[in-house]
Amino acid sequence: MNNPMNIVYALDLLGTAAFAASGALVGVRKRLDLLGVIVLGVVTATGGGVVRDLMLNDAPPFCFKNEFYLYLSVGVAIIVFLAPAHFERLRKEMLLLDALGLGTFLVIGTSKALAFKLGFMGSILMGVVTATCGGMLRDVLSNEIPLILQREIYASACVAGGAGLYLMHQAGFPEPVRLTVAALLVIAIRVAAILKGWQLPRRTDI
Amino acid sequence: MNNPMNIVYALDLLGTAAFAASGALVGVRKRLDLLGVIVLGVVTATGGGVVRDLMLNDAPPFCFKNEFYLYLSVGVAIIVFLAPAHFERLRKEMLLLDALGLGTFLVIGTSKALAFKLGFMGSILMGVVTATCGGMLRDVLSNEIPLILQREIYASACVAGGAGLYLMHQAGFPEPVRLTVAALLVIAIRVAAILKGWQLPRRTDI
Amino acid sequence: MNNPMNIVYALDLLGTAAFAASGALVGVRKRLDLLGVIVLGVVTATGGGVVRDLMLNDAPPFCFKNEFYLYLSVGVAIIVFLAPAHFERLRKEMLLLDALGLGTFLVIGTSKALAFKLGFMGSILMGVVTATCGGMLRDVLSNEIPLILQREIYASACVAGGAGLYLMHQAGFPEPVRLTVAALLVIAIRVAAILKGWQLPRRTDI
Repeated sequence: MNNPMNIVYALDLLGTAAFAASGALVGVRKRLDLLGVIVLGVVTATGGGVVRDLMLNDAPPFCFKNEFYLYLSVGVAIIVFLAPAHFERLRKEMLLLDALGLGTFLVIGTSKALAFKLGFMGSILMGVVTATCGGMLRDVLSNEIPLILQREIYASACVAGGAGLYLMHQAGFPEPVRLTVAALLVIAIRVAAILKGWQLPRRTDI
Repeated sequence: MNNPMNIVYALDLLGTAAFAASGALVGVRKRLDLLGVIVLGVVTATGGGVVRDLMLNDAPPFCFKNEFYLYLSVGVAIIVFLAPAHFERLRKEMLLLDALGLGTFLVIGTSKALAFKLGFMGSILMGVVTATCGGMLRDVLSNEIPLILQREIYASACVAGGAGLYLMHQAGFPEPVRLTVAALLVIAIRVAAILKGWQLPRRTDI
Repeated sequence: MNNPMNIVYALDLLGTAAFAASGALVGVRKRLDLLGVIVLGVVTATGGGVVRDLMLNDAPPFCFKNEFYLYLSVGVAIIVFLAPAHFERLRKEMLLLDALGLGTFLVIGTSKALAFKLGFMGSILMGVVTATCGGMLRDVLSNEIPLILQREIYASACVAGGAGLYLMHQAGFPEPVRLTVAALLVIAIRVAAILKGWQLPRRTDI
């Protein structure tokens, strides 16, 4: 675990599991059958990275190169299906793991965009896509308006982290530093937003 | 018709027509206009293969290389628009053709994934995507939760067929045998599920 | 501005701004937060071109090669968020700009498909995708059945323009002529449909 890439991979798997659990829980609540719950878990966990890889033309998408992401998502979704009440009770822990996944996915997506020589907006956007598209697909398939378009600071934390990572990259910070700082920035903003109930402004007058 | 590939192509066109009809019928029921009905027919018939080809990076997607798929889908959708009551009456025949399309699309998708050297999970998933993503897009565009996430054994039949095809491929079965067996497996499971009302488990306690 | 490509680029930016405003307005009406409004503006403005580039395998999609499209969409969405009432009042002007964007996006998409050697159906479809997928994604994310599947002549105007552009291309018309004629055809059909209330047929008997 001395290699920062191993730490990123460990966090990536943790985030994948957290996202799969969140998708599977929505599936259980929507009364989907077992396979529907698995599909929603896998889509939530891997959808963001798949969309990113399609846009960067890095085929096949990451989870087809390393199928462990698929096995992990399927496994977590089955466990959630068998014992959903346990996960419902772990609400706070789930939110924390979700924040951790958010920071990790953002850092992975923006780093990959930088490696593919995208610009400022593109690098942020690829991080946001990686971190949020899985959840958006989950909500679209559940026939809901995506939560991230409505809810307390979520994608906004990713925008901040992606911008920070881009600027640290331009400034020549070493990789372990910029990955850690950007991920912590996302997680800190997200956790603070949950604790303090921070919201972005919205119009209610129209 | 001695060449097994010609038989697969014939079944592929039959499945395409069945899927286009199912999409167009939903469009008619949702009171879409003529073009909306055509779009829903085309998306249902070709959406699965297009998503598969995007993920495998085989561009442009199949129906742009052989436009007959597009002409066929548009033609079927127009016929459905002109005489929807006939198709409503052919409910049983439509379900059978749909099962046939399901088996054929699964076999085509998983075979292509094997040709692209994907692993066990990836090969199954590409078959499932090919067979079900068109119907999922149809339901998302109609503002419904995708039927395949809820309904009697449907995508599950594809998972079984895809796993069987992968294993027969590893075991070195000749192509005509494994394609036929896998497709028949999907069709048999699906038809039995309809006749017997088989369902996957779902939680109703949460 | 003597170069026809400069005119196309200017119209492209105008259409991008109009589409971004339409997406952002839907976001404001759905009570999304500021970032949700920006996301919906960006997706509406760039979604069609991104889907087209994914299908043509021209990676990364256009707006990552020229980020000005992203800055423009974000900027317009923020302005709409700050002063939505102004845009609500400019209903007619917005419809006109939208028609102009429709014609421009169709021409860009079909031209690109011709450059990639697609056939008749594929070239029309790529123009339709470029012009309408952004709006379809906007509606799917807002949990609505896409307007273009239901509403007065909209995608149909694109089909006519795309077919015209393909035929003029085959007949060897010079590029400035065919681009202008096809775009004007789309805009004229769309504006006439709004003014006259033209509709495609739809079934109401089933």
